[in-house]
Amino acid sequence: MFSQIIERASRAKQTGLRKELEQLCLRMLSEGGSSNSAHIAGGIIEAFATLDARAKLAFFEFLDRSLGLDPVRVLEAATRYAEDPVAERALEVQRVTEPPRQELLRRINRAPGGTAAIVAMRRDLLRVIGEHPQLRAVDSDFRHLLASWFNPGFLFLQRVDWQSPAALLEKIIRHEAVHAITDWSDLRRRLRPDRRCFGFFHPQLPGEPLIFVEVALLDAIPRSIGQVIGGDDDATAPVANARVAAFYSISNCEPGLRGVSLGNFLIKQVAEQLRRELPSLKRFCTLSPIPSFRAWLERLDIDRLPEAWQARARAGVSTAVRELRARHGTGLEALAAQAAAGAVGDDDQRRLALCAGVFLACESTTGHADPVARFHLDNGARLERINAAADLTSKAIDESLGVMVNYLYDLDAIEANHERFVRGEVVRSRSIAGIT
Amino acid sequence: MFSQIIERASRAKQTGLRKELEQLCLRMLSEGGSSNSAHIAGGIIEAFATLDARAKLAFFEFLDRSLGLDPVRVLEAATRYAEDPVAERALEVQRVTEPPRQELLRRINRAPGGTAAIVAMRRDLLRVIGEHPQLRAVDSDFRHLLASWFNPGFLFLQRVDWQSPAALLEKIIRHEAVHAITDWSDLRRRLRPDRRCFGFFHPQLPGEPLIFVEVALLDAIPRSIGQVIGGDDDATAPVANARVAAFYSISNCEPGLRGVSLGNFLIKQVAEQLRRELPSLKRFCTLSPIPSFRAWLERLDIDRLPEAWQARARAGVSTAVRELRARHGTGLEALAAQAAAGAVGDDDQRRLALCAGVFLACESTTGHADPVARFHLDNGARLERINAAADLTSKAIDESLGVMVNYLYDLDAIEANHERFVRGEVVRSRSIAGIT
Amino acid sequence: MFSQIIERASRAKQTGLRKELEQLCLRMLSEGGSSNSAHIAGGIIEAFATLDARAKLAFFEFLDRSLGLDPVRVLEAATRYAEDPVAERALEVQRVTEPPRQELLRRINRAPGGTAAIVAMRRDLLRVIGEHPQLRAVDSDFRHLLASWFNPGFLFLQRVDWQSPAALLEKIIRHEAVHAITDWSDLRRRLRPDRRCFGFFHPQLPGEPLIFVEVALLDAIPRSIGQVIGGDDDATAPVANARVAAFYSISNCEPGLRGVSLGNFLIKQVAEQLRRELPSLKRFCTLSPIPSFRAWLERLDIDRLPEAWQARARAGVSTAVRELRARHGTGLEALAAQAAAGAVGDDDQRRLALCAGVFLACESTTGHADPVARFHLDNGARLERINAAADLTSKAIDESLGVMVNYLYDLDAIEANHERFVRGEVVRSRSIAGIT
Amino acid sequence: MFSQIIERASRAKQTGLRKELEQLCLRMLSEGGSSNSAHIAGGIIEAFATLDARAKLAFFEFLDRSLGLDPVRVLEAATRYAEDPVAERALEVQRVTEPPRQELLRRINRAPGGTAAIVAMRRDLLRVIGEHPQLRAVDSDFRHLLASWFNPGFLFLQRVDWQSPAALLEKIIRHEAVHAITDWSDLRRRLRPDRRCFGFFHPQLPGEPLIFVEVALLDAIPRSIGQVIGGDDDATAPVANARVAAFYSISNCEPGLRGVSLGNFLIKQVAEQLRRELPSLKRFCTLSPIPSFRAWLERLDIDRLPEAWQARARAGVSTAVRELRARHGTGLEALAAQAAAGAVGDDDQRRLALCAGVFLACESTTGHADPVARFHLDNGARLERINAAADLTSKAIDESLGVMVNYLYDLDAIEANHERFVRGEVVRSRSIAGIT
Repeated sequence: MFSQIIERASRAKQTGLRKELEQLCLRMLSEGGSSNSAHIAGGIIEAFATLDARAKLAFFEFLDRSLGLDPVRVLEAATRYAEDPVAERALEVQRVTEPPRQELLRRINRAPGGTAAIVAMRRDLLRVIGEHPQLRAVDSDFRHLLASWFNPGFLFLQRVDWQSPAALLEKIIRHEAVHAITDWSDLRRRLRPDRRCFGFFHPQLPGEPLIFVEVALLDAIPRSIGQVIGGDDDATAPVANARVAAFYSISNCEPGLRGVSLGNFLIKQVAEQLRRELPSLKRFCTLSPIPSFRAWLERLDIDRLPEAWQARARAGVSTAVRELRARHGTGLEALAAQAAAGAVGDDDQRRLALCAGVFLACESTTGHADPVARFHLDNGARLERINAAADLTSKAIDESLGVMVNYLYDLDAIEANHERFVRGEVVRSRSIAGIT
Repeated sequence: MFSQIIERASRAKQTGLRKELEQLCLRMLSEGGSSNSAHIAGGIIEAFATLDARAKLAFFEFLDRSLGLDPVRVLEAATRYAEDPVAERALEVQRVTEPPRQELLRRINRAPGGTAAIVAMRRDLLRVIGEHPQLRAVDSDFRHLLASWFNPGFLFLQRVDWQSPAALLEKIIRHEAVHAITDWSDLRRRLRPDRRCFGFFHPQLPGEPLIFVEVALLDAIPRSIGQVIGGDDDATAPVANARVAAFYSISNCEPGLRGVSLGNFLIKQVAEQLRRELPSLKRFCTLSPIPSFRAWLERLDIDRLPEAWQARARAGVSTAVRELRARHGTGLEALAAQAAAGAVGDDDQRRLALCAGVFLACESTTGHADPVARFHLDNGARLERINAAADLTSKAIDESLGVMVNYLYDLDAIEANHERFVRGEVVRSRSIAGIT
Repeated sequence: MFSQIIERASRAKQTGLRKELEQLCLRMLSEGGSSNSAHIAGGIIEAFATLDARAKLAFFEFLDRSLGLDPVRVLEAATRYAEDPVAERALEVQRVTEPPRQELLRRINRAPGGTAAIVAMRRDLLRVIGEHPQLRAVDSDFRHLLASWFNPGFLFLQRVDWQSPAALLEKIIRHEAVHAITDWSDLRRRLRPDRRCFGFFHPQLPGEPLIFVEVALLDAIPRSIGQVIGGDDDATAPVANARVAAFYSISNCEPGLRGVSLGNFLIKQVAEQLRRELPSLKRFCTLSPIPSFRAWLERLDIDRLPEAWQARARAGVSTAVRELRARHGTGLEALAAQAAAGAVGDDDQRRLALCAGVFLACESTTGHADPVARFHLDNGARLERINAAADLTSKAIDESLGVMVNYLYDLDAIEANHERFVRGEVVRSRSIAGIT
Repeated sequence: MFSQIIERASRAKQTGLRKELEQLCLRMLSEGGSSNSAHIAGGIIEAFATLDARAKLAFFEFLDRSLGLDPVRVLEAATRYAEDPVAERALEVQRVTEPPRQELLRRINRAPGGTAAIVAMRRDLLRVIGEHPQLRAVDSDFRHLLASWFNPGFLFLQRVDWQSPAALLEKIIRHEAVHAITDWSDLRRRLRPDRRCFGFFHPQLPGEPLIFVEVALLDAIPRSIGQVIGGDDDATAPVANARVAAFYSISNCEPGLRGVSLGNFLIKQVAEQLRRELPSLKRFCTLSPIPSFRAWLERLDIDRLPEAWQARARAGVSTAVRELRARHGTGLEALAAQAAAGAVGDDDQRRLALCAGVFLACESTTGHADPVARFHLDNGARLERINAAADLTSKAIDESLGVMVNYLYDLDAIEANHERFVRGEVVRSRSIAGIT
């Protein structure tokens, strides 16, 4: 009883706050471009921060309903424009087809801390959008503006190393999503002289990495993650002779920027910068997981492969899969256990590489594509080499049975590769072309 | 004959270059968000820079015709949305009503130097838009994106002083538009300790002031420009006791940003910063010209004033004007000559102040408004004082018969003042209210 | 046999290297101020770094014998000067009484990295000086020059916080000498908003803290180290209201600068800076150990106290000591055990405080002084409060039976306090004056 | 009468102030290294600044008399040391032979602004030292400490260009001592991309150039100053292909550092830095005046040349001089007039070059040496080429009849050259060796 009363009071208060917030928004939009809006914008940011989850949802619904498009005005303008497509009427169309909430966000952005506040708002929005698909139109406006503001041309690339502020390094530890950083000593090893870490930063969010990539400078393209992380500080190789830069981890830090593509730009800018700094570098590659490989392999049905691949797959892959399943169970449990123990035999390693090669080569342009493969191939990389028994951590076993891939970035070929990929072709090294 | 052949060859070459540029644009737009576009964008920037004026115009027409809206698709989407206004159809409307040239500009912005290149393109566009009004739709897209990117939230305020780089100071000398800076000594005096200069800068255009404002720290609200500029280095007053900050000049530096309002934000940010830095400051005001005063006064016809003002104007202004015209000619030539000589008598000074007060108070919300008055009043300033014989330079005589105005920025009242101005009221000091 | 041969060969090689080094030194000194010496200096630095400990010792002996004073020339110059004390002869005295090794060090300092190399040389010298007291003259020249170059006027004070480079913070962890920092989390707590850390840095040794101090911002003068370190991140108090800044740790980082006093300047500069930054701060104090208290107490013999104190000590302290010894043994083992367990009773606490008070008050100007007490009292601090059971870590029990002291820095009184201390008086708070 | 009274009062006041200052100095020296001295030092700096010239002189005399050496104690210590030259007695000698004013200056240096204050004090001292030679001992202590503190290892080299602060550039204009900078436009030309300017700065005197050098990047070693300064902005040559860096001006900015050699280090550091930055550079040379050439030539008496040169000089120079005097008068007035008009004939040009070559080659190690020649030759440069009619400004005509010299810095030969110069040899290019 009592707690119900309290909750009702609290909810009433939240509703009041939310309505005030909505009034502020409407008032700011009514200002004819006045600079006072920076002041109101500050109030909006503060007010939003006091809302609880339920009130925030209601506010997002307000953005949807009250600050969206007006179908009648849209249709009128479109009709007039179709009748006589002159500049003036085109402008009228654009005016009525941009939802007022876009202007609202632009004005919020004028306040100190505005950009960070908008990113945070979108974080909240993305949390509820799954259950409230009608908010996708609202989210589209957030994403549209953030993509424009977090344009790679506005970001700056910054090296992260042991001279970086501890507050920044702490965020690197927290956000590393591919190969977890266990502690400060582990981080220190990843920032030693023959390793590199670079992040993208926005001028309005100093000290906040948006995305970062970790690179190992090596003699040769690495076959396993053990060649890259772990081990001892003192084993630093002389950087001036490194021939290969291996991108082994790329992590987004800001969920509020989901859908704003930064990774592809980051990899290329880092490759360019390393090429300038270290002329000895001849090859830029990745060492990447295949997160959806095991699931694909367990459920593989040759008949559902793209037609062009079925004949080839029947010749090689189907035998390999049959044998793997026969020896290790349909769920490949025994194989996974062996992989975790580092005890996969040579034959099974060959089989796994064969299957992974076919998976990556034939599915990368279908709906079953591996997301990592899709990212790098669309980005213009070449499928270079499959490495079985390359990562024995439990996540890697669960997802990809320990297999890792090298994608190769040949900076002079990435445009051509990308275009071939867009036309449905996966560019492969000769060795992979051989097995697939 | 020969020169015609050369010209024809040159024109053919330019046409070829322009067509290549257009192909690059189309190709970049066909890329599905790929990071290669940064590379293509670099090519576009380079190619555009090689075009001559005629070819640039043709390129802008290409942006208009080929990368604008498609009336048919717009109408279809609008119709479907009007039938069923769901999120998905709203998104479809937004998709087809954003001209592809906006995405083109966003992608050009990814290249190093992209922002500067887009601003420069718009400079070129604005040069020809007067004679090619159909390009207004193209310009609208430029302006729309630039306003979003040069949002005050993304700019940083920077003090300009004698410690600033000479390369920056040289730009200040060049762009000062209100009271010309004659040489480095003059500049040095304007940057002495009891003067301030602040500019807005964009992170992508370091060292390039977008707009700057000059401020004098004084004991009292200044009555003439001579109290502010000119004079001797050594006369620096102790800053810690200054009571008044007088904004006496504000200049835009970047024609490519026309229509992107920055001045209003600049004044307020500077006022806030000065208030924090120098707690002794009690008043923030301007010392401003009235550029359209003389023209208005020469052609004044009481019957065309806003009705509410006609009675009052007949009582005071019409007499004043009649006397001025009688004594100095319809064009007020003799008055102008006296003003230039600093020899306007007290009576005429009173008459001029009266007329200027009425002009500013009654016309500021009409089509005959003075642009400077409109700017400050809409910005929330109050009309504080009229000063006759305040600027005797020839430009000032020609435009405003030497009269200058103080607009007062009471930081706690600017919101209210702005709202009253929007409703048609000009907020005036008691003394001005007295004469008007 | 074989290893002897190797060792002999190695020793011969070292001797060769050392002789080359000595030749370089002589050659550099023969250069008439030429700028080539920067080049030779680089060679000297490199050569020295290749020497082993034995060869370094031989080199220091070379500095002593060959680059020291010439008694005959010194006596001649002194005699001539005594005969006729004119400027010219004074200059001659100064010329022959400055050992050439000083000029040698000044010239080494011209090379890049010269300052760091000289500091490192002195580190090596100090390692052997105990067994080779004749090198004290050499060391005196090192110390003399380093004191001149590491003059506080040349150092810059820099705040160390969570925004500092990890490489710097790692050094803070390593060099904290009073209350060890266990790991990065412990460090993070010591850098939280209501804590401060400041270091002195030299422009030639960027990123190398020479000495640093840790400060807690509190409501009241702390009674135990537990109020200052340990505990939880989230317990950060609002800094703006802090009334007390407690210096609880000061650590030197550079053994090569032994004897160059920096700590006294550091404390005062930090206090001044905090006073400016946080006007709410009313008191600056320390929370300090008494490292030699237990040893003093165990061997206390009233008859050997300064005479002025014997009467008073007989009245109070002798009883207290007798009781403590009676209850806990002559070595006070049982008392130490109780202290470690945090179980010292009120009576024993009073007895300990009494004894510590007398120790600090009466011995601070004698040969039995506690070094920490001497440092702060000479620095102008006042003996403010004794806190028994204030630090229960084993080192603190071993050295001071868990007792800690607050020294108070009253910035307006430090000069007077210092002068009273120089005259043999220990300035005490009323409460301490009461018990002592 | 009245003015005498005033003057007497003023002098009494100054005497009082000076005596207070002296008391402060004695008090600071009595402090046993205490950190309070930073505070007293601030007082000393302030007090000194209030003294007039007469009182400053009296203060310098106080430094001489009261804070100098004590001949008795010096002799005692020297005697004891001569009896038994152990470390302890050597230290005692050093203690009593360092004048207390050195420690005074070191302590003044602890105050904020201490270094600048000491440099300024020495400026005042140097003004009066000519008439008060007994102050040379005091000055020697100033110079000794400043040389140690302004050791090139503590200075930083900084490029000065059009991005430098105007306040710094203003100082460059003011201090250019060789080829005056007429205004900001002239400065701008000297900072254009194919020119370079570098200065030495001290960390304690930011923004204050101590010395700076101007360099032209050229295709060939310049024959006249007109190839280097003057002319047009737009004529900037592509820097990447420059083969010669010509140092054409080097100016000291700080008279308080007289006798502290910086120029030689500056030239070499700049040459090293340019060599790294621009690998195309093959030769580093100067274009220098011969300030004492005309005076030498007018009074030339072959019999007073170094003996080794007399025979050669009789063969060539004496004829040349005779002819020049015959044609242009003993004072060479007509020749100077022709030079100023740019009308020196080829024969006279040859004669001038011959004489200048002999002057530089034979007198550079004698008491009649040209100071600029001495500087560069001692610095390891080679006498490369004589250029008649190379500078037609009036100062250049007056001093060197328009002749300029190129000294060549071959970075690999400067050590050897310097040593040959020290042994009395002037290293010359083949062409100069031919004429001399």
